[in-house]
Amino acid sequence: MKLSAKLLGGAAAALILLGTAPARAEVSAETQFVFNSFSFLIHGVLVMFMAAGFAMLESGLVRTKNTATICLKNIALYSAAGLLYYLLGYSLMYTDVDSYIGSFSLFYNSSAEELALLNAEEATAELIAPVVEGGYSVMSDWFFQMVFVATAASIVSGTLAERIKIWPFMLFIVALTGVIYPIQGSWTWGGGWLAEMGFSDFAGSTIVHSVGGWAALSGAVILGARRGKYDARGRVRVMPGSNLPLATLGTFVLWFGWFGFNGGSQLALGSALDVTAMAIVYVNTNLGAAAGVVAAMALTQILYKKIDLTMALNGAIAGLVSITAGPDLHNHLYAIVIGAVGGCLVVVAVPLLDRLRIDDVVGAIPAHLVAGIWGTLAVGIFGSGDLIVQITGIVAIGAFVTLTSAALWLALKHTVGIRVSEEDEHMGLDQVELGMEAYPEFGHGSQTI
Amino acid sequence: MKLSAKLLGGAAAALILLGTAPARAEVSAETQFVFNSFSFLIHGVLVMFMAAGFAMLESGLVRTKNTATICLKNIALYSAAGLLYYLLGYSLMYTDVDSYIGSFSLFYNSSAEELALLNAEEATAELIAPVVEGGYSVMSDWFFQMVFVATAASIVSGTLAERIKIWPFMLFIVALTGVIYPIQGSWTWGGGWLAEMGFSDFAGSTIVHSVGGWAALSGAVILGARRGKYDARGRVRVMPGSNLPLATLGTFVLWFGWFGFNGGSQLALGSALDVTAMAIVYVNTNLGAAAGVVAAMALTQILYKKIDLTMALNGAIAGLVSITAGPDLHNHLYAIVIGAVGGCLVVVAVPLLDRLRIDDVVGAIPAHLVAGIWGTLAVGIFGSGDLIVQITGIVAIGAFVTLTSAALWLALKHTVGIRVSEEDEHMGLDQVELGMEAYPEFGHGSQTI
Amino acid sequence: MKLSAKLLGGAAAALILLGTAPARAEVSAETQFVFNSFSFLIHGVLVMFMAAGFAMLESGLVRTKNTATICLKNIALYSAAGLLYYLLGYSLMYTDVDSYIGSFSLFYNSSAEELALLNAEEATAELIAPVVEGGYSVMSDWFFQMVFVATAASIVSGTLAERIKIWPFMLFIVALTGVIYPIQGSWTWGGGWLAEMGFSDFAGSTIVHSVGGWAALSGAVILGARRGKYDARGRVRVMPGSNLPLATLGTFVLWFGWFGFNGGSQLALGSALDVTAMAIVYVNTNLGAAAGVVAAMALTQILYKKIDLTMALNGAIAGLVSITAGPDLHNHLYAIVIGAVGGCLVVVAVPLLDRLRIDDVVGAIPAHLVAGIWGTLAVGIFGSGDLIVQITGIVAIGAFVTLTSAALWLALKHTVGIRVSEEDEHMGLDQVELGMEAYPEFGHGSQTI
Repeated sequence: MKLSAKLLGGAAAALILLGTAPARAEVSAETQFVFNSFSFLIHGVLVMFMAAGFAMLESGLVRTKNTATICLKNIALYSAAGLLYYLLGYSLMYTDVDSYIGSFSLFYNSSAEELALLNAEEATAELIAPVVEGGYSVMSDWFFQMVFVATAASIVSGTLAERIKIWPFMLFIVALTGVIYPIQGSWTWGGGWLAEMGFSDFAGSTIVHSVGGWAALSGAVILGARRGKYDARGRVRVMPGSNLPLATLGTFVLWFGWFGFNGGSQLALGSALDVTAMAIVYVNTNLGAAAGVVAAMALTQILYKKIDLTMALNGAIAGLVSITAGPDLHNHLYAIVIGAVGGCLVVVAVPLLDRLRIDDVVGAIPAHLVAGIWGTLAVGIFGSGDLIVQITGIVAIGAFVTLTSAALWLALKHTVGIRVSEEDEHMGLDQVELGMEAYPEFGHGSQTI
Repeated sequence: MKLSAKLLGGAAAALILLGTAPARAEVSAETQFVFNSFSFLIHGVLVMFMAAGFAMLESGLVRTKNTATICLKNIALYSAAGLLYYLLGYSLMYTDVDSYIGSFSLFYNSSAEELALLNAEEATAELIAPVVEGGYSVMSDWFFQMVFVATAASIVSGTLAERIKIWPFMLFIVALTGVIYPIQGSWTWGGGWLAEMGFSDFAGSTIVHSVGGWAALSGAVILGARRGKYDARGRVRVMPGSNLPLATLGTFVLWFGWFGFNGGSQLALGSALDVTAMAIVYVNTNLGAAAGVVAAMALTQILYKKIDLTMALNGAIAGLVSITAGPDLHNHLYAIVIGAVGGCLVVVAVPLLDRLRIDDVVGAIPAHLVAGIWGTLAVGIFGSGDLIVQITGIVAIGAFVTLTSAALWLALKHTVGIRVSEEDEHMGLDQVELGMEAYPEFGHGSQTI
Repeated sequence: MKLSAKLLGGAAAALILLGTAPARAEVSAETQFVFNSFSFLIHGVLVMFMAAGFAMLESGLVRTKNTATICLKNIALYSAAGLLYYLLGYSLMYTDVDSYIGSFSLFYNSSAEELALLNAEEATAELIAPVVEGGYSVMSDWFFQMVFVATAASIVSGTLAERIKIWPFMLFIVALTGVIYPIQGSWTWGGGWLAEMGFSDFAGSTIVHSVGGWAALSGAVILGARRGKYDARGRVRVMPGSNLPLATLGTFVLWFGWFGFNGGSQLALGSALDVTAMAIVYVNTNLGAAAGVVAAMALTQILYKKIDLTMALNGAIAGLVSITAGPDLHNHLYAIVIGAVGGCLVVVAVPLLDRLRIDDVVGAIPAHLVAGIWGTLAVGIFGSGDLIVQITGIVAIGAFVTLTSAALWLALKHTVGIRVSEEDEHMGLDQVELGMEAYPEFGHGSQTI
């Protein structure tokens, strides 16, 4: 696929003009505005699709009797996250942030300048200029930030699957996406105290993935393990996922969406500098994930003499999470190393959690929390971040999210209750909470659980 | 994710120039052309993927014995729609539209100006200018419009599943996509009489979704319910979907594609005005869908003391359809209200259809027709549309599509026949029409149907 | 969806300026750079998702006992392809290509000019200009090319499913993506001897799809058929796919991704000429696929009195592969003809392979190799290609890939072994290679295999 001379004609001709009229070579301010806003939109759509990825990953990794419920939770949490982030979250995170928190104003709308332009009879230069000065459309930015909070929320549902009640879970999601996530987000991305310290988390290894992971971890501890998962002697009962092709699909969808997640986090597209940097982000994202898969495969082969498909899938996710804090590194070998370490961490962390009797149904804590910490540290090791500052950010955000989440989980536990009864858990949440079966016509195979 | 000062450097520098050389801040005409055309292409690809969404939604909601057939119908109808819209439909809808119909010319091709540019040895300014004057590439527009007709066609297959023969169904699709859809489409989008009246349907709540819904409804009435669906006493037999994770996936895919559907319907991207308006469309699309999910969940919980996953999924679709006629509203709270009402309408309309013994296998009539009518009315209530004109458009299009569809279904019924035999229906269409099974290795579970 | 006068205001105003200041209508060089690079990125993401399409297609067409393994292979091969193409492949294919091969340098990085810009304190015009002169960001191009080699690799796994060992398969993928594919790719796209002859293969009917097909074919011959597939009398035992909705989903995903595959192969977006040409590519891609579906459906109906879903799906893929060598034809009827012939070739080639006792589990050889040859010839028949040169390219690439692949397969066979034991094949690869089941809870239906 060589660029034909003809197709390059326009560019070449323009470049010839460079010598005499350099200004003509630039991107105009309005064109930049369009590029930047469109980048938020199209990359945001890719991230939105990650909600489908989580839904499929989790559907594939739970047992059939809880499959419809996990589907419901996934579409419900994505919906609630979008509404809450509109009603409250975005303002808390980005509007007039002081050191620790933004504005409590409800709703978020287009700027006065934008509305003036949209409502005008004619789009005059005087109306366009103040809009363009913003750099991007404010609602395009809202959209992009919204899909991030939804991602954080998606992480929680997988860990707590198969025993948590739907409505209490949804209450937690409301608080997480409307309040907890935005407050910690304001510290860095809103320009708060961590940003001032220089904490570096490009697309959210800590701010999105670890946040979801801490919320999931505190929930898993307070909710307890699934009935029968660990026996009195500490032996672990394997409860295999019921539909591995769906889990594979979910992983591919996440990988696909991650180009929007990391690539869009360049936050601008409208210059040669930005798009060049964005291309590096894409490449590192892919290399990190690929290295995560290969490392997880190799390590399971070495440790267990078999490859494990779910470890390979979580290896991909861990590779992606790991590279998310610093996908802008110019040396792509670092991306491979960072992703590979992430993949190995999953293989190590999964049995470790089981030894601690923390029951994480889909492996979200290893893939999102452990790899998220690693990725954030890696910016201090391989990138421009300061390691002490990185650790400060990890600890501060971890402490805040864990404490607030745990308080909320405990409050829910002691009021409405968060866990279905033993009998209901045995029967499956689909029967109890929804009164339906995910696969009513498929029989019961080698597993009877 | 704060924009670093460095990355904004280019834009800021350009903005400083604004005072002295305002012209430099604009988007050039050719750049606009590229943006507009690319918007059609990339948003069109998102809409194209909705065909996969419908295929999965319907696969998940039919019984296993009809699953392969519904897959086949979905890929076949998308294919036929594309061919027919190329051969006939687009010209009927957009070429030299008088009040009621466009041109009967076969095929549709790049403009003479475009071909002159493409075939030239060198891309001179004289060749580029007349192409750029068009505002966008004509085939990019064709592509975007084509995926819309395919969406209308996709709606029909779900309602009529499990008892309609493949080839007669395909003949209906040929007529729908080649003639019926384009003629009514010309009335508004082609610039015909409804456009002149001021009928407002941004991305097609009526023109796409209700059209599919009316075609499905007339088919459902003429085809009759599935054998055993309603007994003599009017009791409804539940025939549960066989694969709810696939139905969930399908819904997420539709949601994902809907950003292309509504966002691309801004029809232009190449200015600050357009991309700002497009961002609003994206945001409203997401809020409408989210509100539809939450409203449907809440209402089923209130009415039935349980949540229903398929209602939540159809709530998302209804929310999306509802906001499709007016996703450009600047007040996002309206989008939430409109979507929530759409979600509630589904919960109400599904049992209503059953009471009328109209058997809609996947709930497409509530989600696409009822919500489509609501969304079109909502433009007259919350937006700039005139309510009387909106009602006129709804009724006129509804009458035209219902009459022509019914005539066609009846003609097919009394010639080639449209329904499989009772015995064949019992055996399942996969066996009878395809001679294969969708899931040959999966046993038969709690449902034996 | 008529363009409102208001929204066109900006463009119209700019066009009025054309008469007096034609230069203002052009796309600036830096804007072109952004468009071209972004086209590589976003189209590359679409192609990346084809990996998910292949995974689902193959998961749906193998038997349940081998499903987890095919999922693993698909994510592993995509990962390995990305790593190998980074470490070695891209340089062999594109860096300093002589007639037959590029550079053996390891790794591939941003250009010195790009790094200078990225590392600068300020983005000055002097730093931007040499970057912009490249036409696109070098890593955006790498990303786009990488997803192509992954596609070639994906083709192999389906054909050889259900009997090949994972690790030897992965070794083959390493060689294919790191060495074999890049060397033949350099002949045309790297500017080598076939490019000099005028061999025309727009997006890779031969260079990607047939290459995958030849590698699969040589593997299938050397590996042998699945146990029990052909009996002593040459009768063929049907081994039906276990999950046809997944296979359907996979096909839709491939179709979706193909707009990136063919559209992105325009290699530039930043001019009216390019985006107009790209729109034609999108349209032809869709028409070719649609025609492939309809032709395959019609031909199976005529030949076998039934439609076959898997033939329709492979018809879509064959249509897509056929149009991939020449999707830039201005006459769209040719696209329909080319796709339809591709669809028919699949229907003919599938039983032919069986007669030759070549066991291709998913039909990849008919859909990718046979249709790929046809599509490449079609450029010589309908397009601007020279038929003799097209045949030269087909034969040269076919011979090279077949010989090197066969040598590699034979070497692997006689060292580590490539095939599981008879007993293991009977038990299924999931049990033997992974120790897990893809669907542990689904019973065994009418098929007991």
